[in-house]
Amino acid sequence: MKVVIVGVGLIGGSIARDLKAGYSNISIKGVDINKEYLEQALELGLMDGLATDTDLAEADIVFVCIPVNAIVQDLPKILDKVGEETLVIDAGSTKLEICKTVDQHPKRRNFLACHPIAGTEYSGPEAAILELYKGKTNIICEVEKTAFRLQEKALDIFKNMGMRIRYMNPESHDKHIAYVSHLSHISSFMLGKTVIQKEKNERDIFDMAGSGFESTVRLAKSSPAMWTPIFQQNKSNIVEILEAYIQNLEDFKDLLVQDNYEAVFEEMANTNKIKEILIGIPQQSKEK
Amino acid sequence: MKVVIVGVGLIGGSIARDLKAGYSNISIKGVDINKEYLEQALELGLMDGLATDTDLAEADIVFVCIPVNAIVQDLPKILDKVGEETLVIDAGSTKLEICKTVDQHPKRRNFLACHPIAGTEYSGPEAAILELYKGKTNIICEVEKTAFRLQEKALDIFKNMGMRIRYMNPESHDKHIAYVSHLSHISSFMLGKTVIQKEKNERDIFDMAGSGFESTVRLAKSSPAMWTPIFQQNKSNIVEILEAYIQNLEDFKDLLVQDNYEAVFEEMANTNKIKEILIGIPQQSKEK
Repeated sequence: MKVVIVGVGLIGGSIARDLKAGYSNISIKGVDINKEYLEQALELGLMDGLATDTDLAEADIVFVCIPVNAIVQDLPKILDKVGEETLVIDAGSTKLEICKTVDQHPKRRNFLACHPIAGTEYSGPEAAILELYKGKTNIICEVEKTAFRLQEKALDIFKNMGMRIRYMNPESHDKHIAYVSHLSHISSFMLGKTVIQKEKNERDIFDMAGSGFESTVRLAKSSPAMWTPIFQQNKSNIVEILEAYIQNLEDFKDLLVQDNYEAVFEEMANTNKIKEILIGIPQQSKEK
Repeated sequence: MKVVIVGVGLIGGSIARDLKAGYSNISIKGVDINKEYLEQALELGLMDGLATDTDLAEADIVFVCIPVNAIVQDLPKILDKVGEETLVIDAGSTKLEICKTVDQHPKRRNFLACHPIAGTEYSGPEAAILELYKGKTNIICEVEKTAFRLQEKALDIFKNMGMRIRYMNPESHDKHIAYVSHLSHISSFMLGKTVIQKEKNERDIFDMAGSGFESTVRLAKSSPAMWTPIFQQNKSNIVEILEAYIQNLEDFKDLLVQDNYEAVFEEMANTNKIKEILIGIPQQSKEK
């Protein structure tokens, strides 16, 4: 199997690790605008060489694992270059703009729009881990627009990586993912910012912060280069959920100001049911 | 060593586990208003029996590990009952109101005001774990108001449990802990609330939420009975930091609305330095 991975960071690198482990007769070539990443990926054995346009034309599968603004820019060009039988899969955290971008492309049927819900707050090929995708959900959008034999090829690989599949339209994907992923990142970034602003003396943070703080600000380590275009492409859904979040925080603050502690208790008790919801979420150790 | 633990939940139960492991000649008796907790603590071997007033009078050490409103209510009565040589330690997440409550108590010198920065989002004796406190910071307030020989006794035990000590006045404690703990809990509860409100279909949360969501809403599993009185006692600090947090969220939202993605990027890049800060925080697995 001939594979090309465009973007050999955490996501692309982890796919490479799974493919190397799962397939014996495989060649993986890579592309990245970051030269350092390319060298690291080669050293780590995530790929066997640099991909050329010929590799794209001859590839069985091309994984596009770059920031979502770069996907919108490069995906049409990648489709231009691939062969008639090549399957092109993206891993972008937004789906609507990406799907729109290639909707009229002559090779649209070579493309499968995916979002594997997996990752860590780290970036780059050194952050890539084996079995990152095991037990995780892979959202596939507009499956009907992909050639059936290429769908089958993709499902085989996802099965091999241990992913469960869910089909969804791009609009629904972008709405729900704003709720359960994009909002968490903004909440975390702003929490980190607020505490850094207040705590002039970092020693106070070191000494007094427990694992609760660590857990809620962990995502503030995430890559701005990856997340800025996600927020841009999913702006309307994010602004909507962010407003709802701010309103809930305002309401909670008002209850405190009014000394209405019965209501404060109720707010928390009602939200405790998140326990049952979280049981359904596959665990992933976030440590490298 | 004769020990009485008032409140045999996660915090008191974990102290019991460490004491049982660290001292050979030890008797631990317990009190709890929750009968079920008492039975569980006995079954789990966290304590050897129920504590009576005589046990309080004869105890070498009494640990008070109950919600902070109950500490304010019960601590003076406990001090009334203990012996001249008994050391009384609390583990409350607020310190100012607790210190004020016993400031004029005739046995003030028997009391050491503490906040071990440790815990999980779980509650009750079944959540108690060995070495919960190892490597964690224990904030001691108004140490000068505790008899010197009792300070020494306490430091011995904390050393045995592997805690590092930091001295602070109650005002500073309550201010900083609002920033690095109490805010995280509110952010998490409101995040959970917002997503539950939006996601009528829980399957969407199960399937689409990744570990990032799990991490940011984990604290929303916390006990309302424990946290409501903390928010009440630390209201002014919490309202202040909550307002700063809401303002930062508003500003971030405005940047999105204005399509100012350069500034969005900068906001995140500036907050990425949280990485270095988090390295200093002792890790604690949150799983039972």
